[in-house]
Amino acid sequence: MENIYKSSVEMILEELNRCLGGVDEKQAEALIEEILRAKKVFAIGAGRVLLMLQAFVKRLNHIGVEAYYVGAVNEPAAAPGDLLIVASGSGESAVPAAITKVALKYKPKIAYVGSNMNSTIAGMADIKVRIPCGTKLNLAGEMKSNQPMSSLFEQSLLIFLDSIVYMIVKKQNIDINILWERHANLE
Amino acid sequence: MENIYKSSVEMILEELNRCLGGVDEKQAEALIEEILRAKKVFAIGAGRVLLMLQAFVKRLNHIGVEAYYVGAVNEPAAAPGDLLIVASGSGESAVPAAITKVALKYKPKIAYVGSNMNSTIAGMADIKVRIPCGTKLNLAGEMKSNQPMSSLFEQSLLIFLDSIVYMIVKKQNIDINILWERHANLE
Amino acid sequence: MENIYKSSVEMILEELNRCLGGVDEKQAEALIEEILRAKKVFAIGAGRVLLMLQAFVKRLNHIGVEAYYVGAVNEPAAAPGDLLIVASGSGESAVPAAITKVALKYKPKIAYVGSNMNSTIAGMADIKVRIPCGTKLNLAGEMKSNQPMSSLFEQSLLIFLDSIVYMIVKKQNIDINILWERHANLE
Amino acid sequence: MENIYKSSVEMILEELNRCLGGVDEKQAEALIEEILRAKKVFAIGAGRVLLMLQAFVKRLNHIGVEAYYVGAVNEPAAAPGDLLIVASGSGESAVPAAITKVALKYKPKIAYVGSNMNSTIAGMADIKVRIPCGTKLNLAGEMKSNQPMSSLFEQSLLIFLDSIVYMIVKKQNIDINILWERHANLE
Repeated sequence: MENIYKSSVEMILEELNRCLGGVDEKQAEALIEEILRAKKVFAIGAGRVLLMLQAFVKRLNHIGVEAYYVGAVNEPAAAPGDLLIVASGSGESAVPAAITKVALKYKPKIAYVGSNMNSTIAGMADIKVRIPCGTKLNLAGEMKSNQPMSSLFEQSLLIFLDSIVYMIVKKQNIDINILWERHANLE
Repeated sequence: MENIYKSSVEMILEELNRCLGGVDEKQAEALIEEILRAKKVFAIGAGRVLLMLQAFVKRLNHIGVEAYYVGAVNEPAAAPGDLLIVASGSGESAVPAAITKVALKYKPKIAYVGSNMNSTIAGMADIKVRIPCGTKLNLAGEMKSNQPMSSLFEQSLLIFLDSIVYMIVKKQNIDINILWERHANLE
Repeated sequence: MENIYKSSVEMILEELNRCLGGVDEKQAEALIEEILRAKKVFAIGAGRVLLMLQAFVKRLNHIGVEAYYVGAVNEPAAAPGDLLIVASGSGESAVPAAITKVALKYKPKIAYVGSNMNSTIAGMADIKVRIPCGTKLNLAGEMKSNQPMSSLFEQSLLIFLDSIVYMIVKKQNIDINILWERHANLE
Repeated sequence: MENIYKSSVEMILEELNRCLGGVDEKQAEALIEEILRAKKVFAIGAGRVLLMLQAFVKRLNHIGVEAYYVGAVNEPAAAPGDLLIVASGSGESAVPAAITKVALKYKPKIAYVGSNMNSTIAGMADIKVRIPCGTKLNLAGEMKSNQPMSSLFEQSLLIFLDSIVYMIVKKQNIDINILWERHANLE
C-alpha cells in the first residue's frame, strides 16, 4: 500500500483543478457583485452542500457581510434587496427547490450555483454560476469523478466559495488580521 | 387501555405546575431585566436543553431581542454588556461549563438556569434562576418526576422561557399581530 | 408588577390543558401503534416545530426506537415499513410539504400532526393527529391563544410527544432507571 | 480585474497541495485502521471545523461506517471499542477539549487531527495526524496562508478526510455506484 495517501490527495486536487477551472470567471464576478450589493445574504442547499454553504455563511459574517443559512434559528425575513444563493449540483433537490419557489414571493435576487443550467432551480434564478460536476445525470460538458457520490461537487463548492471570500477580501482591502475579533469567542 | 392519553397529559401538566410553581418570581424578574438590558443575548445548554434554548432564541429575535445560541453559524463575539444564559439541570454539563469558563474572559453577564445552585456553573453566574427539578442527584427540595430522564426539566424550561417571552411582550406592549413580519419567510 | 410570573405560567398551562384536552385519544393511540410498528421513524417540521420534533427523536432513541429528523447528518434512506411524522400547525409549511411529497415515492407510512385536517400535508397522510391550535387561519374549532405566534402549538407538540413517550414507556414496561446508559455521554 | 478568479483558485489549490503534502502518510494509514476497527466513530470540532467533520460523518455512514458527530440528536453513548476523532488546528479549542476530557472516562480510542502536537487535546490522544497549518501560533514547521483565519486548515481537513474516504473505498472494494441507496432520500 505504497503512497496511497499521496496519490489520493493528488487525484482529488487534480479533479478540483479541472472542475474549478471550468467555472466561468464572469459568473464568479457577477456573484461577488450581488453579494456586495445585497442587504442580507441567504443560502440554501441539502446535505453536504448545506454544510459547505454554512461554512461560507460563517466566513461572510466575519468579513462583514450579513448572511444566514435558510433554517437558521435567527433567520430573518427575506425582502427585495436581499440575495438568496441556492446550491445544488442537479438543480432539482426538493428542499432547495421548494425554498426557491417560496422566495419568488418575497423578491430577493436568486443565484443558482450548480451543474445543471436547465434545472428547476436554475430556471428560477436571476444569476447562475456553473460548477460543471456533481450530478448523477451525465450532463453534456460535465466532468466525471473518481470519488464517491457528489464529493467533488461539494469540495469544489467549498473552494469556490472560499475563493469568492478571498476575492472580496482583496477587492475591499480587508485587513485579515483583525477578523478574529468578529469571530465567535465562546468556543 | 382507557383514557391513558388523558391521564398522561394531566400527569405531565400537573408536574409542570408544581415545578414551575417552585420558581421564585423575583429570579424570573431579574432574568427579564438582564435580557432587556443586554446588547446581545447568548444561550448554551446540552442535548434537549439546547433545543429548548434554541426555541427561546428564535422567539427572542421575533420580539426584537438580538439573540444567538452558542455554536450558531453566525454567532458574533461576546463582550461586556452582553448576557450569556446557561441552562443545565445539574449545573455540571461539560460543554456549557467549558463555555461559561471561556465567557468569564469576555465579561458578558452570566445567568444560570437550572436546579443545582451549588454547581460549577451556578458558581460562575451573576444571576440564577432555580427550576427545582431535573438533576439525577436527588437534591434537597428537588421534585421527583414520573417521566423518563430529565424530560420534566426540559419541558419546564420551555414553558418558563416562553412565559419570560410573554412577560416581555406585556411589559413592552409589543403588538403580537405584527411579529410574523420578522419571522423567517423562506420556509 | 405583582405575581406576573405566576399568572403567566398559569395562563400557559391552562392553554396547554385546553389544547391538549382537545386531542382525540384514539388518534394518539394510532400514532403510538405506528411508531412501535415502524422499522425507523423520521420526523420533519419547520422552525420551532422542528426543534420540538428533534427533542422527541432524541427521547425515542433513548427508549429504543430508531428515529431521525429529516436533514440529520446520518439520516438513512426511508423505505416501506418506516414512519414519517410531519408536524405543521397549518399543514402547509413549504419544506415539510416538499419532503412529504418526496416521501410518497419511497412509501413510508405518513403521519400528520397539526391543526389543519384539510391541508396539503394532511391530504398526503395515512394517519392524522389533530392538535387544535396554532394556525393563522382561524379554523373552525381551533382555539385562540394569548401567546405570540404559534407558541401554543409548539408547546402542545412537545408535551403531546412526551406524553407519547410516557405511554410507550408504560405500555412496554421500560425501566426508566437504565435509560441514561443509552444517552450520549460525551457531553 | 483580470483573471482574479483563476489566480485565486490556483493560489488556494497550491496552498492545499503544500499543506496536505506535509501530512505523514503513516499517520493517515493509522487513522484509517482505527476507523475500520471501531464499533462506532464519533467526531468533534468547533465552528467550520465541525462542519467539515459533519460532512465526513455523513460520507462515512454512506460507506458503511457507523458515525456520529458529538451533539447529534441521535448520538449514542461512547464505549471502549469506539473511536473519537477530535479536530482542532490549535488543539486548544474549549469545547473539543472538554469533550475529549469527558471521553477519557468512557475509553473510546482518541484521535487528534490538527497542527499542534504539543496541545491539550493532542496530549489526551492515542493517535495523532498532523495537518501542518491553521493555528494562530506560528508553530515551527507550520505553513502560512494567504487566506483569512483558518480557512486553509478547514479546506485541508475536508480534502484530507475525503481522501480517507476514498482510500477506504479502494481498500474495501466498495462499489460506489450503489452508495446512493444508503443516502438520505427524503430531500
